[in-house]
Amino acid sequence: MSDTQTRVVVTEVGMRDGLQSIVRTMPTEFKRRWIDAAYAAGVRHMEVASFVPAKLLPQMADAEEVIAHALSYDDLIVTALVPNLKGAQRALESGVHRIVAPISVSTAHSLANVRKTPVEMIESFAAMRELIDSTASANARRVELIAGLSTVFGCTLQGAVPYADIAATARAALQAGADVIALGDTTGEATPRQVGEIIELVREVAGSKLRSLHFHDTRGLGLANTLIALQHGIREFDASLAGIGGCPHAPGATGNVNTEDLVFMLDSMGYDTGIDLARLIASRDVLADALPGEPLYGYLARAGLPKQFSTAAQCFEPSESQVLQ
Amino acid sequence: MSDTQTRVVVTEVGMRDGLQSIVRTMPTEFKRRWIDAAYAAGVRHMEVASFVPAKLLPQMADAEEVIAHALSYDDLIVTALVPNLKGAQRALESGVHRIVAPISVSTAHSLANVRKTPVEMIESFAAMRELIDSTASANARRVELIAGLSTVFGCTLQGAVPYADIAATARAALQAGADVIALGDTTGEATPRQVGEIIELVREVAGSKLRSLHFHDTRGLGLANTLIALQHGIREFDASLAGIGGCPHAPGATGNVNTEDLVFMLDSMGYDTGIDLARLIASRDVLADALPGEPLYGYLARAGLPKQFSTAAQCFEPSESQVLQ
Repeated sequence: MSDTQTRVVVTEVGMRDGLQSIVRTMPTEFKRRWIDAAYAAGVRHMEVASFVPAKLLPQMADAEEVIAHALSYDDLIVTALVPNLKGAQRALESGVHRIVAPISVSTAHSLANVRKTPVEMIESFAAMRELIDSTASANARRVELIAGLSTVFGCTLQGAVPYADIAATARAALQAGADVIALGDTTGEATPRQVGEIIELVREVAGSKLRSLHFHDTRGLGLANTLIALQHGIREFDASLAGIGGCPHAPGATGNVNTEDLVFMLDSMGYDTGIDLARLIASRDVLADALPGEPLYGYLARAGLPKQFSTAAQCFEPSESQVLQ
Repeated sequence: MSDTQTRVVVTEVGMRDGLQSIVRTMPTEFKRRWIDAAYAAGVRHMEVASFVPAKLLPQMADAEEVIAHALSYDDLIVTALVPNLKGAQRALESGVHRIVAPISVSTAHSLANVRKTPVEMIESFAAMRELIDSTASANARRVELIAGLSTVFGCTLQGAVPYADIAATARAALQAGADVIALGDTTGEATPRQVGEIIELVREVAGSKLRSLHFHDTRGLGLANTLIALQHGIREFDASLAGIGGCPHAPGATGNVNTEDLVFMLDSMGYDTGIDLARLIASRDVLADALPGEPLYGYLARAGLPKQFSTAAQCFEPSESQVLQ
């Protein structure tokens, strides 16, 4: 790390997005261990739970407990996903720093995911904004409200998602009071050229409020898409340890972009993530212990770091053994 | 496909690079079927064999037969890999269009791979050039001699490979008569920023003779690296159906960039490969039949094409169901 390196924020979302697709409930004790291990590896942004009814998603029944543990680290930014006003109320009470609400651009996905049309979800989002503002005290830090635009890059129910719908949804979310716009490749359909186009499109609407990208690696393009997003100025990405999770609408598909592989790519390019790769890879042990038999993905954990890997550029001096002129 | 699309050449190298790492010998009949299936899918560039002693690599003992079959297609460009002058002689007699000779930038790898130092390999390469020129007749098309620079992006034996060595090796290969310079990430260590730097470095030496890139996907960066190479003007890539193969120096690592996933990315970005994705995916059946139990890799074959996938950009019209303003 040096002062001249560009900082990139990697948010570990495996505890939320990864686990929500896994039927087996991870005991709270393991979620605590996971947070501890990620923190020890240098991860300072985690989305650790969602506030949904426990009967719908037993995996998240311990949201308050998990968040309380995450908040025991002073410099850890803690995010929760919230689909409705009741969830937002619980999230506020839990003390999270960031609330992300999923707003699907696709009507079909929105109805399937939150039983609301995009318009109804925007209304709910505006109510979350009011709730946050009305409960904010002068002394406390303000909770950040993130509009997590979903199915931005395609929808398995609807098919292609028109660009005009993306722009309209971003605009509506901002009018409803979003602090931040995040773009989600919910179904793993994003492709590189499209990623660049959509970032520019949303930036026209949202300016610097467009902040983070959330890719799934369903078709192997997660890191290629990340690369394009980096080139378009994005400096914040979601990822999931061991790439756990998956998309219920794409059987056999893997989950989010793999945190280890993402950090490896960022390191290799000289970006500063603050994350120690060896410790991050070691933290996979928590998942192996907690979810025996669950597939753990990732290239780097299998192949290892290249010999003499460092973020420093290769030297420009010829090697002693090289005598070609 | 349209006239306005940029053409990108995808060379299927699975029959050579993929198979050479697989101990079980694929019967010639299946290699013929593979070539047929790839051709039917629109693949017009294939590296189908290497000319190495059969006792060292029984998998390639049928090189002449396989090449003869490939040459039965008039518009198929057929390449063979050749490590020495004797191999070049056999390759010339077989009638291939392109000969690629591996020239390692790393001395340690060169000795391990071809039992020659880089300097000795350059001498051998110059002798291949002479042989090709001396056997060329005025009527026949000229066989293209490609210097396949190996371990350009790192070496599992040597570690980092100095940039000065890469430039010196490229220069020496050109002086020895290379028609084309290809860069190979032999050990799957390439990373995006480095790929861009090395392309620019070699282009300073080789100009337009720097033509193709050969990536392995050992650390999940194969497509991200390809993306950078595209941005730096490269329009020719090697790939392997179902990503078969591997690197003997990286146990558990996958082989070349997966052809299907590569073509999917290129299609999505509007490049014209001439390859039909559905037929390409179907051609994996040949591998499943020929190599039962062998792992077949690839995201696209598992997840399928996105709904309504097309190379056309998303429409800019809002959908009827969208009413956000």
